[in-house]
Amino acid sequence: MNTSEFRRRGKEMVDYVANYMEGIEGRQVYPDVEPGYLRPLIPDSAPQEPDTFEDIINDIEKIIMPGVTHWHSPYFFAYFPTASSYPAMLADMLCGAIGCIGFSWAASPACTELETVMMDWLGKMLELPKAFLTENAGEGGGVIQGSASEATLVALLAARTKAIHRLQAASPELTQAAIMEKLVAYSSDQAHSSVERAGLIGGVKLKAIPSDGNFAMRASALQEALERDRAAGLIPFFVVATLGTTTCCSFDNLLEVGPICNKEDMWLHVDAAYAGSAFICPEFRHLLNGVEFADSFNFNPHKWLLVNFDCSAMWVKKRSDLTGAFRLDPTYLKHSHQDSGPFHVSFQHWQIPLGRRFRSLKMWFVFRMYGVKGLQAYIRKHVQLSHEFESLVLQDPRFEICAEVTLGLVCFRLKGSNKVNEALLQRINSAKKIHLVPCHLRDKFVLRFAICSRTVESAHVQRAWEHIKELAADVLQAERE
Amino acid sequence: MNTSEFRRRGKEMVDYVANYMEGIEGRQVYPDVEPGYLRPLIPDSAPQEPDTFEDIINDIEKIIMPGVTHWHSPYFFAYFPTASSYPAMLADMLCGAIGCIGFSWAASPACTELETVMMDWLGKMLELPKAFLTENAGEGGGVIQGSASEATLVALLAARTKAIHRLQAASPELTQAAIMEKLVAYSSDQAHSSVERAGLIGGVKLKAIPSDGNFAMRASALQEALERDRAAGLIPFFVVATLGTTTCCSFDNLLEVGPICNKEDMWLHVDAAYAGSAFICPEFRHLLNGVEFADSFNFNPHKWLLVNFDCSAMWVKKRSDLTGAFRLDPTYLKHSHQDSGPFHVSFQHWQIPLGRRFRSLKMWFVFRMYGVKGLQAYIRKHVQLSHEFESLVLQDPRFEICAEVTLGLVCFRLKGSNKVNEALLQRINSAKKIHLVPCHLRDKFVLRFAICSRTVESAHVQRAWEHIKELAADVLQAERE
Repeated sequence: MNTSEFRRRGKEMVDYVANYMEGIEGRQVYPDVEPGYLRPLIPDSAPQEPDTFEDIINDIEKIIMPGVTHWHSPYFFAYFPTASSYPAMLADMLCGAIGCIGFSWAASPACTELETVMMDWLGKMLELPKAFLTENAGEGGGVIQGSASEATLVALLAARTKAIHRLQAASPELTQAAIMEKLVAYSSDQAHSSVERAGLIGGVKLKAIPSDGNFAMRASALQEALERDRAAGLIPFFVVATLGTTTCCSFDNLLEVGPICNKEDMWLHVDAAYAGSAFICPEFRHLLNGVEFADSFNFNPHKWLLVNFDCSAMWVKKRSDLTGAFRLDPTYLKHSHQDSGPFHVSFQHWQIPLGRRFRSLKMWFVFRMYGVKGLQAYIRKHVQLSHEFESLVLQDPRFEICAEVTLGLVCFRLKGSNKVNEALLQRINSAKKIHLVPCHLRDKFVLRFAICSRTVESAHVQRAWEHIKELAADVLQAERE
Repeated sequence: MNTSEFRRRGKEMVDYVANYMEGIEGRQVYPDVEPGYLRPLIPDSAPQEPDTFEDIINDIEKIIMPGVTHWHSPYFFAYFPTASSYPAMLADMLCGAIGCIGFSWAASPACTELETVMMDWLGKMLELPKAFLTENAGEGGGVIQGSASEATLVALLAARTKAIHRLQAASPELTQAAIMEKLVAYSSDQAHSSVERAGLIGGVKLKAIPSDGNFAMRASALQEALERDRAAGLIPFFVVATLGTTTCCSFDNLLEVGPICNKEDMWLHVDAAYAGSAFICPEFRHLLNGVEFADSFNFNPHKWLLVNFDCSAMWVKKRSDLTGAFRLDPTYLKHSHQDSGPFHVSFQHWQIPLGRRFRSLKMWFVFRMYGVKGLQAYIRKHVQLSHEFESLVLQDPRFEICAEVTLGLVCFRLKGSNKVNEALLQRINSAKKIHLVPCHLRDKFVLRFAICSRTVESAHVQRAWEHIKELAADVLQAERE
């Protein structure tokens, strides 16, 4: 494909994308296909000679779209939102064209430098403590990771390295393995599975702290675990506090947990993957109070801040803690401006992969084309819609709300057995008019209604609720029969 | 930005991208900026009210482009190629619009299923052993990772888990830490730094095997290390063999190393990050001989196969080895078609992050719009250009070739001191007409000339050589003075 054909096909694709977004409400949110549907529809090996673009674009509707779960449908209320906005898509086109691999400053200075500035912009939107920003030429700074899972892992590895160095400095005879055997990390029993995974990968114990009645990690439970584990000869070194859990958007008590971490010399990582975007609104900023105790903080603009995946924002108070865990400098990656200050870092030392795209362009486009006020308005709309759904649920005595509604997630269920709620979810997801996923809160099977789409409005929420009520009536009827 | 504005701005962006690609030869390949150049050019915080699209698009040329290293310039000969093609960019636009997060089959069936089929297509292009493919409903399969670094890490973690299980089955009293303390992994002393990093992250020893005169890992050196380490009570469990090293594109001897790994029950991971793309050409396929001994194999279509970053192709002979290292199944990610066969896997269990984009679309577009023959022609053109450069170097008695030229990389230097070669590289990269990076081969400082750009032609290679010769004359002149 030469450049002039790209001009033509690119514009056709822009229209295809625009048509898709415009018409998404008319598509069934969850597909009808069964596992294995796709393979029989396409050849079993790549063509020797080129296919035409027409063939391919036609196959999108024939082969791909029938198997797509439409995450941006206004009837998608599953998981958590994933960001989608036109400014981010435009930036991604530019990112693809520049196509640099920004592992070091020299590999593409603009890529590294825009990222440090965008992370400062975003940090200031959240009113993060100055220690996390780069602009003050302190020891902190921000980096774009691919996902919150990676941010948690990177934080755990940094904490692990730091703990090993500290303990070996005090007792040089200790081997790394002898220390790792005793290291123990903590998170709430409501934390995302990626935290447990980070522990697995890092080869350290990860213990779940029982959350309180509001599904929050509190000081007393953490303190109890610490004392028990220290008495058993273990070495607590790392705590993940979650702001906005995946199950029910609960908030660990940072103001209680933070001081304990600082006092006990444990790295505190704050994971606000979903909720973090809301902290740009002054009325939600209090939920971040206590971040001043953290060593690292992370949230996903690619969830709720209109920056398409992937863009996971992570800040640390001390850059050298991250780079200390990873740093290796082969000759073929060296350059003459090697890490000579806070403005020309090598982000390769901050992350798991070596390569990285020019993702800060997406932040730049989105922040500028929405403005802070536009982004705040977007968050507020979602929160308002979740409260609207909450009040609909509360008006129906057959249902109950299962966790406090703070941001865009409503956990609800039919009063009654898990079985009846499983049956309700099954009917909802079989009807495919809307899409939801469940969670477990303690022993209760609960339905999660997450406000997700950029284009979801009150009318969609109302229609979803009417639909849920109808199916609930069927389920309850079937139960009585 | 509403949809009708996106239609307009998207088409403008298509033209901007097309103009950029068309005019890239006229841009200086390496920027003039100094570290810190960007921050003073933009506000220190995000705007409250939206900026216009015109403001932003104008700022691209004013603020971003002056700091871009143009990886797709035909005068870029640094590092290794990173892929760029119009079909991949078109696919990326579609991927951004669909915007699904394909961690499980249900999260977007098309995303998971196209990936399994594309990985089969690609595996067949490489004539991978059937055990690595999904279509035979065996135990193997392919997955798209973000980078070769992640693939190596994932392989190491899978091997670690497998070794721990095996040893604990034999001796239940052994703790994980006691085993990890003794685990030892191996790679050639020419392996990429990401291998050492995987060892660091995984908390296991990684030993470098001295390579032979052709910078290849051979049986004898590996065997020697194994015997020494076993005698010392260590437990060899993992070997990374590199096909196409980053320093000089040397090839470890798979046919020697593979059988040892199988015999000694060590996981063999084959890293062909750069070179792998060439194996689609029958005349280069022999370089992959021995892959039948491997447990996992990885290469980066995002380097040399025209699929834009990120797209790192990884295959395993036994899927359950990977998922065994990671598997966690919280309720909110469960669905009714949970891993019920080879065609509806949950790729979340194959990788470090949870989230993932619909990256197989890029493979589908590229493979179909180039056809296998088009892709082969592209590889052959690059190899031919590197041999052209090699012969130019060989014609000049002042220079020497430092490693066998097999694919698209030429390692060369002025006969003489490292100092004179460092001076030459410094002049090249200061002149900024072309861009190169160096490497060390044993104690020699060497210049790497990598054929990178999709649009590089003989004329560019000839001009680059003329330029290098001129600067070399200056350097030699300066040295005599």
